[in-house]
Amino acid sequence: MKTFTLGDLASQVGGEVLGDTTIKIHATAGLSQAGDGQISFLANRKYTPLVKSTQASAVIVKEKMASNAALLICQDPYYAFTRIAVLLHGYRRHPFSGVSTGASIAPSALIGQGSAIANHVNILENVRIGKNCTLYPGVFIGPESVVGDDCILYPNVVIYDQCQVGNRVIIQANSTVGEDGFGFATHKGIHHKIPHISRVIIEDDVELGAGCGIERGAMEDTIIGKGSKIGDAVVIGHGTKVGPHCLLVPQVGIAGSTTLGHHCVAAGQVGIGGHLHIGNGVMIGGQAGVTEDVPDGVTLWGTPAFEASQAKRSYFLIRRLPEIWKELKRLRERIAAIDGKTGK
Amino acid sequence: MKTFTLGDLASQVGGEVLGDTTIKIHATAGLSQAGDGQISFLANRKYTPLVKSTQASAVIVKEKMASNAALLICQDPYYAFTRIAVLLHGYRRHPFSGVSTGASIAPSALIGQGSAIANHVNILENVRIGKNCTLYPGVFIGPESVVGDDCILYPNVVIYDQCQVGNRVIIQANSTVGEDGFGFATHKGIHHKIPHISRVIIEDDVELGAGCGIERGAMEDTIIGKGSKIGDAVVIGHGTKVGPHCLLVPQVGIAGSTTLGHHCVAAGQVGIGGHLHIGNGVMIGGQAGVTEDVPDGVTLWGTPAFEASQAKRSYFLIRRLPEIWKELKRLRERIAAIDGKTGK
Amino acid sequence: MKTFTLGDLASQVGGEVLGDTTIKIHATAGLSQAGDGQISFLANRKYTPLVKSTQASAVIVKEKMASNAALLICQDPYYAFTRIAVLLHGYRRHPFSGVSTGASIAPSALIGQGSAIANHVNILENVRIGKNCTLYPGVFIGPESVVGDDCILYPNVVIYDQCQVGNRVIIQANSTVGEDGFGFATHKGIHHKIPHISRVIIEDDVELGAGCGIERGAMEDTIIGKGSKIGDAVVIGHGTKVGPHCLLVPQVGIAGSTTLGHHCVAAGQVGIGGHLHIGNGVMIGGQAGVTEDVPDGVTLWGTPAFEASQAKRSYFLIRRLPEIWKELKRLRERIAAIDGKTGK
Repeated sequence: MKTFTLGDLASQVGGEVLGDTTIKIHATAGLSQAGDGQISFLANRKYTPLVKSTQASAVIVKEKMASNAALLICQDPYYAFTRIAVLLHGYRRHPFSGVSTGASIAPSALIGQGSAIANHVNILENVRIGKNCTLYPGVFIGPESVVGDDCILYPNVVIYDQCQVGNRVIIQANSTVGEDGFGFATHKGIHHKIPHISRVIIEDDVELGAGCGIERGAMEDTIIGKGSKIGDAVVIGHGTKVGPHCLLVPQVGIAGSTTLGHHCVAAGQVGIGGHLHIGNGVMIGGQAGVTEDVPDGVTLWGTPAFEASQAKRSYFLIRRLPEIWKELKRLRERIAAIDGKTGK
Repeated sequence: MKTFTLGDLASQVGGEVLGDTTIKIHATAGLSQAGDGQISFLANRKYTPLVKSTQASAVIVKEKMASNAALLICQDPYYAFTRIAVLLHGYRRHPFSGVSTGASIAPSALIGQGSAIANHVNILENVRIGKNCTLYPGVFIGPESVVGDDCILYPNVVIYDQCQVGNRVIIQANSTVGEDGFGFATHKGIHHKIPHISRVIIEDDVELGAGCGIERGAMEDTIIGKGSKIGDAVVIGHGTKVGPHCLLVPQVGIAGSTTLGHHCVAAGQVGIGGHLHIGNGVMIGGQAGVTEDVPDGVTLWGTPAFEASQAKRSYFLIRRLPEIWKELKRLRERIAAIDGKTGK
Repeated sequence: MKTFTLGDLASQVGGEVLGDTTIKIHATAGLSQAGDGQISFLANRKYTPLVKSTQASAVIVKEKMASNAALLICQDPYYAFTRIAVLLHGYRRHPFSGVSTGASIAPSALIGQGSAIANHVNILENVRIGKNCTLYPGVFIGPESVVGDDCILYPNVVIYDQCQVGNRVIIQANSTVGEDGFGFATHKGIHHKIPHISRVIIEDDVELGAGCGIERGAMEDTIIGKGSKIGDAVVIGHGTKVGPHCLLVPQVGIAGSTTLGHHCVAAGQVGIGGHLHIGNGVMIGGQAGVTEDVPDGVTLWGTPAFEASQAKRSYFLIRRLPEIWKELKRLRERIAAIDGKTGK
């Protein structure tokens, strides 16, 4: 367990301390659980009252507020907190080193220096694994696939043949990369399987959650752009290109041959149709269904999705529909009555 | 194959027989497939006509009705049926015993008496497994994790480090417990991974379906409460606390830092947002999207979800929208006509 | 790499060449990526302008159009393209042969001639595997299950006990077949697990995507009909019967005891309730939620789903709700004004 003074942490993350800079901090914790020696943060306004009542020794905030804790004032408290969590706790240390005798590695495969290959891993012909990777038990890497440096593949991750995984890629357990896409040509009622001869390319610094499926392309590569982060149980269709620095929250599904720009965000359970072009910086609200091309910078919601602030107003009015229905009836009757009075 | 008389079964489950108590029953079956020596049940009113026509030897029902079969009258036919199915068939017998020499178990791990550890299982440092567990092939248990007594982990279940699994927990194949949550601090367009130093705690008598993902917390534990049952492909976000005795049907997704009370039910494909408080006994209809806190005992539906009986009325009226639109136009014209007549 | 002349390909797939029949073709490619020696196709009208500008040597089209490429005119370009892709590229060649010494096979199991059983596969008591199958590493086949001829089970596929898999079945990685269904009898607030004693039957020529869950039945078998193709992360409930030649796109969920006819199509993220009867040739649009029985040949959309062309009109009008609301208010005021004028 590492310990820092609050002053040390402030200088590391570039913040200002309001309170005792010599307080010793050894852990991060949530506002309502934190105690002595722990540092918390405020990023979601909903939790502002907890800053006052917290038992944390310090709280990272954006501006001065009432608290018994010392305050560490930073422009971006969530980011500062993340950096401090890394300083205090670091990331998971992996319980493997070297190449296990229980792994099965094709003679033609190349394993980079410092990589740990655990028990029950299967690495097939002509695979290349970079330096300092960790492959957990049950990982499968198909023939000709390439994994870069500093990657972490958790248990039972499956990467099919001829795929490319960049550097510093993390794939959580039980995810699949490069399975055949859902592509069938239906002829006289029979669905004929289309050979999927293209690849999946996962660029640097991507993270995939658990239980994902990234389909390989039939004719065009499927690409997950640099720095994009994908949650659990997300499915990406064949030939789809997710741009760099996107966030796809758990259970999102994107059909095939669609293109997303950079810095797009799709919230939980969003569905995006096939053959669409989604611009840069597009934000899509939870469970929305996108059925049309979307220009840069738009925020969407609903199924079918449209501009979010309008969609919120519109969808909210669904609950007034019984009232609308009743009022229409009343107006019809009023008009009939007036018609009667005015001799129609 | 065990055989009971109908009278025996009735006394075991506390029901009353209408018909021959000496009939021999050896199996359960559905109303339309059941034949001689088989017992069926009626729980869903939709199937009432089948009670009359069934070829089953006996049917479990709530009240007297016409049937060629003997009737076993019980207050809760579905529960009585379940108990009888357990008596007649029991649960799956597991094809493993003892610790396989093909399993890989860290020297520091403790395995309880009577537990079966199959081939290709990996159990890491300082893991504790309780008594009478069955771990199928391909199961991975990360360092410091604890599994209670009488648990069943089906093939390729992955439990990350430092997680806690209670007693009598069942996890179906290819599910993941304790992967890092979807938590990134975005700073200048780059998504920085937040260390996830908290755990997943799965309490006693929980069942998880196949292909689930239960994210570990960043700062607070993710908890699945005692007796809760979770279907296939469900994703639970980091720090979320599912109360005891909840039912989460397949493909439900719950974002992070949300709290569910006890005895909540979320039907298929429901999405629940993050940082919400869902009360006790809340029922959420299929595909609903919950975006606000929900008090105890409410039934919800729709996206965004609101009280279900209102939501059903409102959503039903969506299909009248073309009619509403037309009628509005008609009324507008009528009023314009009246205005014209009355000199406006 | 195989090479054919365009004339050869035309005679193989039964099309007519407009242009040079002696052109040599060695690969398929998309219209915008294709180059010399490559053949592309036009199936989606959206891409028609690309036929003119493509650098492909040949394009498969339905009718004559302007292009620098030679044209191969076929009635069903997508199907012709599929057949040509098979001729040129074939399907994946599997990197295994024979039975690996690293596989674990029960003495009572039977493995058909020509089947490849890879490392770390577990095949339990009384399993029968047909001829010319490929079982990738990490596959688990539970006791008494049967797999037909020419099947491909990708890494970490789990088939529970007593299931039946037909011939030429393909199951992508990390999918689960035969896990216990989501069936619990709730009695006094406790959810009691129902024994699931029925099977999953997967008929001939079915393909399942990655990360699927096909629940076994409690009392009735779950059936996936001949020739049906199922995408990634699809969940099929216990006792549900999917008819032959259906297409279930990724992330579809079908609850238990539901029946689908033949040639149904459910698009991405569709949910279908339990105990429903869906006819033949039913088409269900993306994210729709089906809550009622559906007769043959209907196309549906929306949640709750209804006839699609009506649903599209209705759902489109949701975005006019603010306008409808405003207009209603205006009419109410107009009528009040008229009432005032006409002495009410």
